[in-house]
Amino acid sequence: MKKFLDLVDLNDSELERLLKRARTLERHPTGDALAGKTVALLFMNPSLRTLASMQAGVSQLSGASFLIQPGAGSWKLETRPGAVMDGDAVEHVREAIPVLAEYADLLAVRCFAEGKDLATDLADGTIRAMAELSPKPFISLESALSHPCQALADWKTLDDFDIPRAGGRFVLSWANHPKALAYAVPASALNMALCRGMNVTVLRPEGFDLPEPVMARARTLAARHGGALVTTDKRDEAMAGAHVLYAKSWSAPSCYGKPEEEAELRALHRDWCIAESWFKKASPNAKFMHCLPVRRNVKVADEVLDGPRSVVVKEAANRLHVQKSLLVEMLGGEVAP
Amino acid sequence: MKKFLDLVDLNDSELERLLKRARTLERHPTGDALAGKTVALLFMNPSLRTLASMQAGVSQLSGASFLIQPGAGSWKLETRPGAVMDGDAVEHVREAIPVLAEYADLLAVRCFAEGKDLATDLADGTIRAMAELSPKPFISLESALSHPCQALADWKTLDDFDIPRAGGRFVLSWANHPKALAYAVPASALNMALCRGMNVTVLRPEGFDLPEPVMARARTLAARHGGALVTTDKRDEAMAGAHVLYAKSWSAPSCYGKPEEEAELRALHRDWCIAESWFKKASPNAKFMHCLPVRRNVKVADEVLDGPRSVVVKEAANRLHVQKSLLVEMLGGEVAP
Amino acid sequence: MKKFLDLVDLNDSELERLLKRARTLERHPTGDALAGKTVALLFMNPSLRTLASMQAGVSQLSGASFLIQPGAGSWKLETRPGAVMDGDAVEHVREAIPVLAEYADLLAVRCFAEGKDLATDLADGTIRAMAELSPKPFISLESALSHPCQALADWKTLDDFDIPRAGGRFVLSWANHPKALAYAVPASALNMALCRGMNVTVLRPEGFDLPEPVMARARTLAARHGGALVTTDKRDEAMAGAHVLYAKSWSAPSCYGKPEEEAELRALHRDWCIAESWFKKASPNAKFMHCLPVRRNVKVADEVLDGPRSVVVKEAANRLHVQKSLLVEMLGGEVAP
Repeated sequence: MKKFLDLVDLNDSELERLLKRARTLERHPTGDALAGKTVALLFMNPSLRTLASMQAGVSQLSGASFLIQPGAGSWKLETRPGAVMDGDAVEHVREAIPVLAEYADLLAVRCFAEGKDLATDLADGTIRAMAELSPKPFISLESALSHPCQALADWKTLDDFDIPRAGGRFVLSWANHPKALAYAVPASALNMALCRGMNVTVLRPEGFDLPEPVMARARTLAARHGGALVTTDKRDEAMAGAHVLYAKSWSAPSCYGKPEEEAELRALHRDWCIAESWFKKASPNAKFMHCLPVRRNVKVADEVLDGPRSVVVKEAANRLHVQKSLLVEMLGGEVAP
Repeated sequence: MKKFLDLVDLNDSELERLLKRARTLERHPTGDALAGKTVALLFMNPSLRTLASMQAGVSQLSGASFLIQPGAGSWKLETRPGAVMDGDAVEHVREAIPVLAEYADLLAVRCFAEGKDLATDLADGTIRAMAELSPKPFISLESALSHPCQALADWKTLDDFDIPRAGGRFVLSWANHPKALAYAVPASALNMALCRGMNVTVLRPEGFDLPEPVMARARTLAARHGGALVTTDKRDEAMAGAHVLYAKSWSAPSCYGKPEEEAELRALHRDWCIAESWFKKASPNAKFMHCLPVRRNVKVADEVLDGPRSVVVKEAANRLHVQKSLLVEMLGGEVAP
Repeated sequence: MKKFLDLVDLNDSELERLLKRARTLERHPTGDALAGKTVALLFMNPSLRTLASMQAGVSQLSGASFLIQPGAGSWKLETRPGAVMDGDAVEHVREAIPVLAEYADLLAVRCFAEGKDLATDLADGTIRAMAELSPKPFISLESALSHPCQALADWKTLDDFDIPRAGGRFVLSWANHPKALAYAVPASALNMALCRGMNVTVLRPEGFDLPEPVMARARTLAARHGGALVTTDKRDEAMAGAHVLYAKSWSAPSCYGKPEEEAELRALHRDWCIAESWFKKASPNAKFMHCLPVRRNVKVADEVLDGPRSVVVKEAANRLHVQKSLLVEMLGGEVAP
């Protein structure tokens, strides 16, 4: 595997091998599978879990990493082809990526949606262009439209709690948030659940559908893997028999790139702060999932996050295990089974 | 030892073991006592010595560390229980700490006083709450009211220069500074000297007493360990026979959280810039101590810092040795004696 | 070698040994020559290549590094002797450098020109003062007037492409840029080419001569090593038979420290964006060199950077190899030949 940009790109045997090795690494976290290897971490955006787990994971397998943060200690990077660079950006990714590839055995890059133009962000072209520029293996640590390491960690988390694949009921719920957010996490969670063959409900208020290209792709995955996909704004219907509620906020597509307009729409839905009462018709042991960071008592009530159904820390823990598995996969070492 | 939040919490045998191992590590700085171990460094505030010495120390013992700086490359963290998180903070320590504990074998956290409410900062609740949230060993790298690694380094420094424990004369002097500062360092230095059984004088201008709860605790320690504790604004009296002048600035408690008012008070004491002349009645080889960073020619004159009585670089060097000793203590490795 | 502040300070045997070991390390990039060693990276200014290559290089040779960025997570540093520190700077290099030297086996420091006073920056005193303060080996990672690791990498790059030493034709060309830049890179490139014995042409518009002290030193080097040194504003003349065009922008000395005035002068020369047409009279395989970062289509056209004569990524790759060689030289390890 030379590039990891989306969970959907994995074939079944790659996916199962990654998950199996992740379970092994969870039990045996240290080793020398990455001895002598260097990982470049290029973070265009803030991070806690991704930054910490990549650094910890590399060193636990005896490799080394270094961090470059454009705009914070490193030069701000331009990504547009053909740009006349007379503005803030001092260096182009056309130089930065090949140069980092000279110093490292693998590049791992975090580059969020720009949040200005919907079509541009849905095309997810920036991370793909950067991956193309790299002669070395390349991992996306979240792009405009995909957060594949999160999706892989979430898959393992669902397995860890014996959530059924076919027949499992997965609710992806919109939640309140002070800011308009991108589609990377909801799209990745949606696709992940559908690739498992689960029955998925997107629960959201009017006006907060996921963009049609995201839903079109999801329908294809539902058809391919034998699951169902429905959208509703009725909480009790959505949650009936649910095994999982996966919460995330995202921007109203009709106001994408217009934060003031979007905020007016969102202000109507302050009650979308997930509470324990949402689970009253759910499966008895239904889990609450979230990729973190989460704004307490805005997106989710303390009672849910501090209660027994929250598995958010386990999801975060799995980031470490699956990323280590991925690094071993891409850098050619191996771990004892 | 699972948590290290204050020097005063150590019993005698723990303290002597830490100091002895620190001396060993000073002579033999590299080894593999931390092989396979990962240390999470969570820095809410700026640092030079702490940041550098923790990273250097961990790697010199073959461990690995990673750095998370909330608000600078990582999400800004909320610390208040029950907060409705609709402001700047994107993540709560209730998630961040357990997540980091999944990635690391030990957490080391720097979290200064907020500087708004005196009672809140004197309660030192934030670091204690974070330590409670961590299932892994936890080190305070300076909190609202304590800087225990500095206190441990200062203890070793006093030993290195053969400053008497019982009978030694320790002057903690207020000094001028452009800003109102917290009580973590003066409280820790005061307690450290009193735990050694030294006779301590707090030298400060009128209005710059340490807060009463700090002094009450100090009186208890003086009684327990057999030292004396007096407060004065008379330099020559304070310095008569002194073995050590330890300089630090701190806020006037009466104006805590009101920087403009406090600045007016402080403006009356620009002459509290420590000069060689302060030492004229001191013990012949009296030392000048400071935790660093120090503002030259505002807090202390060049002539003192560049002269033979300054041991500030040795204090900083000891940060490395004692912290390595502490990491070995808490992570269960050992070093050859 | 205890300090590396300028390529010109190396004698012939040191230089050849560094280059030879760099070639060895290029072929065999990993090893344990720096095992147990700690490198302090003190970066006052932004960086991509320097930061990444130092961290990667140290770890590839089994050493460890840590990064301190004053003003971004670490205290802002004062460099002026005798300063009354009542401003932004919280710590003086007189403390910071000796303290870092207690934690590390070698200090590597990046400290750009201040850009206010020409004579001050040409004296390059700040980096020299910091080097003096360090009891440990010290590497300049770019100072006000010198970028010696870049010069060493450029030397190797010229060798890699078999550019003749004596008789080789090296054009150092000014190029357009939105901001007034310092002389460190052009001075280092100029001196590097002259130390090789090359014939050097400085190509620049009227008013953009390099400062006279830079040129005086260059004339001395030309005389010593048998090369020629001319200055012109005629592109075709300069480029006739050239083996290399090395592009860089720099400030007009007459307006140093006056960015508005300087911008007016520079605005007359927007056509100094290097294009393929500049090479029409050059040697057939003439190379384009630049230290990076480079502003595309302002300083250099895409057609040059993306074309076959650009060796900018190779220059950057050589930063890694020569710096590793330098670290081994200064820290006393060795690599198998």
